[in-house]
Amino acid sequence: MKKVKIHITLKEGVLDPQGKAVQNSLNTLGYDGVGEVRVGKYMELFIEDSADIEKQVEEMCRKLLANPVIENYDYTIEEGVTQ
Amino acid sequence: MKKVKIHITLKEGVLDPQGKAVQNSLNTLGYDGVGEVRVGKYMELFIEDSADIEKQVEEMCRKLLANPVIENYDYTIEEGVTQ
Repeated sequence: MKKVKIHITLKEGVLDPQGKAVQNSLNTLGYDGVGEVRVGKYMELFIEDSADIEKQVEEMCRKLLANPVIENYDYTIEEGVTQ
Repeated sequence: MKKVKIHITLKEGVLDPQGKAVQNSLNTLGYDGVGEVRVGKYMELFIEDSADIEKQVEEMCRKLLANPVIENYDYTIEEGVTQ
């Protein structure tokens, strides 16, 4: 069993209204030092080990998890604990 | 300027319907090896440097960004590029 950690973030230049809302809220709460905020997704997947696991994960990201038109993704594959 | 990376994840034992939906979709697409999936949030904040930046970030996570009842958070504070 492998543990795959995936980060999905908006590409540079793509507007991030959710991040903007977080920034405004933080500023309103008195955290004036907060500048740009970008909000992304983080996923942990437990996957059975196989020879082509990296190819599989790459495919999953491209086909289902991220929208490659506006999002970047990166992942790390780690030894997972047995569940 | 510091770059703060924040991960917010559901606590163990808290149901994650979004993760379950992702798992089902991946299985349906033919990725049978995919077991549990947990979906969380990932944020990048650019914050002006200050002596108590760590305390500030801790407070922001607890008060606004995460729900400490059902979510865990952790963060790293890095040297950010000037924007």
